[in-house]
Amino acid sequence: MSLVVIGSVAYDAIETPHGKRERTLGGACTYIALSASYFTKPCIVGVVGDDFEQQDRALLAEKGVDLDGLEQVPGKTFFWSGVYSHDMNERTTLQTDLNVFADFQPKVPQKYLAYPYLFLGNIQPALQKEVRERMPHVRFAGGDTMNYWIRDYRDELLETIKGWDFLLINDSEARMLAGTNNLRKAAAQILELGPNTLVIKRGEYGAMLFRRESLFMVPGYLLEDVFDPTGAGDCFAGGFVGYLAERGFDLRNGHFDVHELHRAVIYGSVMGSFCCERFGVERFRTLTRKEIDARFEEFRRFTAF
Amino acid sequence: MSLVVIGSVAYDAIETPHGKRERTLGGACTYIALSASYFTKPCIVGVVGDDFEQQDRALLAEKGVDLDGLEQVPGKTFFWSGVYSHDMNERTTLQTDLNVFADFQPKVPQKYLAYPYLFLGNIQPALQKEVRERMPHVRFAGGDTMNYWIRDYRDELLETIKGWDFLLINDSEARMLAGTNNLRKAAAQILELGPNTLVIKRGEYGAMLFRRESLFMVPGYLLEDVFDPTGAGDCFAGGFVGYLAERGFDLRNGHFDVHELHRAVIYGSVMGSFCCERFGVERFRTLTRKEIDARFEEFRRFTAF
Repeated sequence: MSLVVIGSVAYDAIETPHGKRERTLGGACTYIALSASYFTKPCIVGVVGDDFEQQDRALLAEKGVDLDGLEQVPGKTFFWSGVYSHDMNERTTLQTDLNVFADFQPKVPQKYLAYPYLFLGNIQPALQKEVRERMPHVRFAGGDTMNYWIRDYRDELLETIKGWDFLLINDSEARMLAGTNNLRKAAAQILELGPNTLVIKRGEYGAMLFRRESLFMVPGYLLEDVFDPTGAGDCFAGGFVGYLAERGFDLRNGHFDVHELHRAVIYGSVMGSFCCERFGVERFRTLTRKEIDARFEEFRRFTAF
Repeated sequence: MSLVVIGSVAYDAIETPHGKRERTLGGACTYIALSASYFTKPCIVGVVGDDFEQQDRALLAEKGVDLDGLEQVPGKTFFWSGVYSHDMNERTTLQTDLNVFADFQPKVPQKYLAYPYLFLGNIQPALQKEVRERMPHVRFAGGDTMNYWIRDYRDELLETIKGWDFLLINDSEARMLAGTNNLRKAAAQILELGPNTLVIKRGEYGAMLFRRESLFMVPGYLLEDVFDPTGAGDCFAGGFVGYLAERGFDLRNGHFDVHELHRAVIYGSVMGSFCCERFGVERFRTLTRKEIDARFEEFRRFTAF
């Protein structure tokens, strides 16, 4: 069933120890949609400038991404540039030009309004809330956020996630949001804020899924070479929510079986790992569902005891 | 079957955000033996001064640790003191007085020479090698080391681990030993140095077991409160090698089934997690095998999918 994804579509300049790209398709919404496209039909809501290239539109369309909600306006597309440290554990942002993204007012096409799955990428919490409210038929809504909103827009953010079914953030964001260092305590506090499902990403160390009654943990996939970690967290999000959209709800009770949520965390981890194997979105040009399912089974092999 | 453990027996002064202890039983050999005592009969080889207290000897004896190899000499017992940062991710050593440990010459009692399992705690590699060679009947030998020996005693260390069946180190040590940042590559290189089993500990993030033909990973246990991480890595070692000693070899081929090695990593993780729940070795005063097995099953629940 269709999934609506809202967030940034961008051009990135990336430098890692393995090389550099001057201008490559990026943005959270792009990564989430490309990743989710292996499981479901993602429909994106975003904005680009008149410099957005036909070949990038074509890549998304080829993967079955619905582009009716991708608004094109005069001006330049959001541009970000960054450089990774030698061990890739640190990333320095060199430049952030919001450009047309600065005035982004999400416009949800009429036909999207009936869709049941919604992922709200990292944008201003008030906008996330507005979109959520505009889509009353959504039955599984959630998204992510970042340290900036947690610190400086706390009340707005708390109002926003109150209405979410799931929240997907990284460990430092979880600690900041809950105001405690211990992740188990932080998770318990966050589960009181609205979402009944909390996914905490830990980068190379894996991910965890918390619910009131259960905990699930998976280590990160050990890659032979990490070319470029840009977008890995967003690809995790796309795999997580994409897999759930593919499986669909248990219609009897309107929510997911907890084992489906666990498998969704594995698919998220799988997609995040593939993302790092090439620069930017390049891995998605060749990636197949067969490779994805094979890596899912690999996760099973290296974690079962 | 009996396990011989060689390493430091010490007194520690520890300060964490949860409190402090001025003088508490510590040392790698102590933690390894206490942890392994839940699975097998550990026999320790170490040295203490004439200040070593009867109550500490009694705790070890009570747990079934064989103390025939614990030499007592005039002078003071090894003393270490350290303080943990607020988030416990950093530890600062305030004082290290080697005392009688400075001239430690391991004396292996005659009766230990027939035992099949040997864990060589972190001491000078040449001493580890000497002990290994003095015990020709050992069929499963290994141990750990530290950055100091890897950096300044590299050739000696390489000569030493050549004769080991397993090596148990943390991730930064693995990177330093192999000279590469990527853990998968580092592991492959280390497996060429002698040991056919490599366990890499990652602290709160869990552990990994590498063999030429397989990989196993487990996330760290999420504690509600970490009181004191001192000794957690050594307790991991004790659980790992203690469980294997309890299970015994497959007598047909003289080595362990790989699934036993994986379960040993889980028992290692379980023991490391219990260690952090109280200061120093305090948790071992009350810990039961039943609690250990229950946490083993908890690991299964939160990692299966």
